[in-house]
Amino acid sequence: MKGTLFVVSGPSGVGKTSIINSVINMLDNVVFSVSCTTRPPRPGEVDGVDYFFITKEKFLEMVDNSEFLEWAEVHGNLYGTPKNFVQENIKKGKRIILDIDVQGALQVKRNFDEAVFIFVAPPSYEVLRERLLKRGTEEPEALLKRLDNAKWELSKMIEFDYLIVNDDLVNSIQIMKSIIVGETYKTKRVLTEELIKNLFKGVTDK
Amino acid sequence: MKGTLFVVSGPSGVGKTSIINSVINMLDNVVFSVSCTTRPPRPGEVDGVDYFFITKEKFLEMVDNSEFLEWAEVHGNLYGTPKNFVQENIKKGKRIILDIDVQGALQVKRNFDEAVFIFVAPPSYEVLRERLLKRGTEEPEALLKRLDNAKWELSKMIEFDYLIVNDDLVNSIQIMKSIIVGETYKTKRVLTEELIKNLFKGVTDK
Repeated sequence: MKGTLFVVSGPSGVGKTSIINSVINMLDNVVFSVSCTTRPPRPGEVDGVDYFFITKEKFLEMVDNSEFLEWAEVHGNLYGTPKNFVQENIKKGKRIILDIDVQGALQVKRNFDEAVFIFVAPPSYEVLRERLLKRGTEEPEALLKRLDNAKWELSKMIEFDYLIVNDDLVNSIQIMKSIIVGETYKTKRVLTEELIKNLFKGVTDK
Repeated sequence: MKGTLFVVSGPSGVGKTSIINSVINMLDNVVFSVSCTTRPPRPGEVDGVDYFFITKEKFLEMVDNSEFLEWAEVHGNLYGTPKNFVQENIKKGKRIILDIDVQGALQVKRNFDEAVFIFVAPPSYEVLRERLLKRGTEEPEALLKRLDNAKWELSKMIEFDYLIVNDDLVNSIQIMKSIIVGETYKTKRVLTEELIKNLFKGVTDK
């Protein structure tokens, strides 16, 4: 069985990380995509688990060699999703989850369209605004920027394969789990050479 | 939310009907596709539930008007899947299950490619042969014909969207349930005008 990359995206505050964390505990053969970064590790962070910590020179070399599915600069540090990690895990039959902002997801789509793209949306723009206000972790200016960004992000949801409207967390978890399990059984992923051999062995022997 | 037609197929003896019957009991908003037939009702059969019982003249008129997704003659009687029934239920947001042989499924694919096609395969040709032998409900000649037919049917599985290898019934039931739930959340089915209104209302009002 071939693995699959699942790209999960949506505006911040929509609850996608909570959904992903629950789904990961319910399924076998699932791994988080590990990103490369040029920022130094924080206490407790482990190389190869939290991030691949690499130098800026190495990062830019990888950019030049098209070794990222997507990359971006955030507060002066570089972050990117290495193609190699994803491809190795697909070969092993793993389901890889990439939790990423909408802009990053669309970059992945251009570079790796065999991935499955899942958008998590709020039931309404009002609900998203309330959730971000309640969280209260941000300066008003940052909050306004997030809300402004959300408008653009919502306009991109048509480019995703699946759409989960997160009005009930428990329900959304079940839906994402079903999407991941269902996609695993796409014919193109199940039909290995071994299965073909088993199915047609008895036929040709006769 | 828009409904979907799920076409479930595979060689006879593979266990697809057992899987479908369990899945139907686990999900809401699911209906069986009801076929038209020219054969007379058997005791207890209800028109519109078991079949739509119609005359041969009416049936052939429907064929001429392309009102079937597929149709076939079996032992002198005509059987067909009416397009109208499927379309009405899609509008109502129902998930319609059509349990049909491979030849019929491929006919549906030519006429209605927005349906979702699921193939149920045995783990090997040997297992299928054993299952049909064990069933012992048929004359040797009919059995050989079924096995011969299975070869052709297995060669067509690549044309289906999903492939379930039925080596464990409980597992296969979970997989088919996930496929049906997952497909329900394809963006094209979830993105109704009402949702778009809710998502962009707050945006344009600002």
